[in-house]
Amino acid sequence: MQWGEQGLRLLDQRRLPGAVEYETFDSALGVAEAIASMRVRGAPAIGIAAAYGVVLAARQRYRENPSTWREAIGLDLNALAGSRPTAVNLFWALERMRSETGKIEGDPEPHLLQVARSIHDDDISANRAMGEMGASQFAGASGVLTHCNTGSLATGGYGTALGVVRSAYRRGVSNIFATETRPWLQGARLTVWELEQDGIPATLIADSAAAYLMKTGVVQWIVVGADRIAANGDTANKIGTYALAVAARHHGVKFMVVAPTSTIDWTTESGESIRIEERDQSELLNPYFAKPGCVIKAWNPVFDVTPAELIDCIVTERGIVRNPDRQAMRALRADA
Amino acid sequence: MQWGEQGLRLLDQRRLPGAVEYETFDSALGVAEAIASMRVRGAPAIGIAAAYGVVLAARQRYRENPSTWREAIGLDLNALAGSRPTAVNLFWALERMRSETGKIEGDPEPHLLQVARSIHDDDISANRAMGEMGASQFAGASGVLTHCNTGSLATGGYGTALGVVRSAYRRGVSNIFATETRPWLQGARLTVWELEQDGIPATLIADSAAAYLMKTGVVQWIVVGADRIAANGDTANKIGTYALAVAARHHGVKFMVVAPTSTIDWTTESGESIRIEERDQSELLNPYFAKPGCVIKAWNPVFDVTPAELIDCIVTERGIVRNPDRQAMRALRADA
Repeated sequence: MQWGEQGLRLLDQRRLPGAVEYETFDSALGVAEAIASMRVRGAPAIGIAAAYGVVLAARQRYRENPSTWREAIGLDLNALAGSRPTAVNLFWALERMRSETGKIEGDPEPHLLQVARSIHDDDISANRAMGEMGASQFAGASGVLTHCNTGSLATGGYGTALGVVRSAYRRGVSNIFATETRPWLQGARLTVWELEQDGIPATLIADSAAAYLMKTGVVQWIVVGADRIAANGDTANKIGTYALAVAARHHGVKFMVVAPTSTIDWTTESGESIRIEERDQSELLNPYFAKPGCVIKAWNPVFDVTPAELIDCIVTERGIVRNPDRQAMRALRADA
Repeated sequence: MQWGEQGLRLLDQRRLPGAVEYETFDSALGVAEAIASMRVRGAPAIGIAAAYGVVLAARQRYRENPSTWREAIGLDLNALAGSRPTAVNLFWALERMRSETGKIEGDPEPHLLQVARSIHDDDISANRAMGEMGASQFAGASGVLTHCNTGSLATGGYGTALGVVRSAYRRGVSNIFATETRPWLQGARLTVWELEQDGIPATLIADSAAAYLMKTGVVQWIVVGADRIAANGDTANKIGTYALAVAARHHGVKFMVVAPTSTIDWTTESGESIRIEERDQSELLNPYFAKPGCVIKAWNPVFDVTPAELIDCIVTERGIVRNPDRQAMRALRADA
């Protein structure tokens, strides 16, 4: 993700690894569409893209009418907020941008761009810090499994869980496994592509092979990102995360969530109140079954919720919470 | 699977559900190739196809030389035995056919065909019996999840685990779920196709969504087939079965294995000595990673082993073994 004079330049993640294609978006609605269509995905990346989207909205509305741009960007903010329902970073970034609009006099673009850039830079710094902190927990470990894509593509850069994997590899953790992550294959298309670009050897497995892999003893840690973390540490993340956590506990494998504190939704008490996005059943169903009246359907939840009691630690840029619960999570609050 | 004067007629399962195409095989080597290439799959179906393959071998070798056919089919038997490594039904069926060759005088085809047909018919009868027995265990249940394909396509007809699902549906179990079963998608292509042909409503899920489905409480039973059952009840079955068993135990969901006794390998003491077939990594890896020297690999085990202690019951045509272990399994031995 790169900001340029023309707008926000995004790598179309749907085409990877076969094709590396960039597209530049010069409007907030374009960015919203890029998020909704999953050209860009990953909770932190969605937040950063939306922040740049607000810059584009302000530029356009200020050009249209310098005196009403604050009101006019309301629709753009709504469109960005409606692009994906689960990633709390999206709402966090939009609120941060919106809160800046009050103090601006004259052309809003320079100031808002500065804020968006700082959201982006802070995310990369947070990822580097989390990568080192997370990897420091792996004393004696030789193998790690990650799920979905939480790397540079899903964040401002470096990655959350994949940042930990990168740091762990440099510290000698050499058995790196990635799930393919159905139905979008973020692991098979994006995660192993990122690792390949970095020259980090990795092994891809079917999602359903993860428990059996844990049984072999080759991995001692599961490392995942998060799309939303509730105040008690319950974590919504890519579908399949919960299955990994259940299997990890069964095998005595440790389970780590890596996410910036912008992923924590302090207003959500527990995972039970997180609404889970369901995507179209065509992502799973063979076209044969698309005929009218067919008795075959698909259930396609994009995320699931892993209860805090199955999580050994949550790694954030503000520190690590071990055995997360409501009390332990409080240490991460900015107002604590 | 149908026997005709020309040979063995097989539905090419790789083309389903998009195309329903039959092919007739008139040689044992052809049948061996059909098994190896997964035109036909499923442990019981492989055994039955191999039995018909022996008929074709005997026909051909007897025509070539009526006095040496017994020796000449040795190579054909080897080819059939080498077509897939895990399904014990294959070796069971070949041994049953080979043991018949000694008593034959003159043209071996009529007698061997009679034996192959009886293996086929017995499998269908066993499936019907297992379907009713298995479904009778579901008192009060409203939902069931099955994995891979264990239906008519995988057996002589009706199915093992899917036979139980069929019988359960007729008894009012209305929430039927099937995993897509990566990487071959036997669930997404075959199981829901069979259910659709029968007009049985079913919902497809990603393999990784199964644990989360169990958490919702909508399924009370997991029902799977088996490729090989060890003497202590440990069960080798499609990759992902073990993950389902681990998640089922975590959620208090019951776990049922359905297989004819021909799937039990009494010479295998426990699951630890079952060799697990690994198929080509291209079944998981994007072609982008096929380049020489690429650091990205895939681990593609076709089966995994579920320990007996995670299995609530094993349903066979000779009865149900609850809480299977070495002692309890003995009740199923023909010589018990």
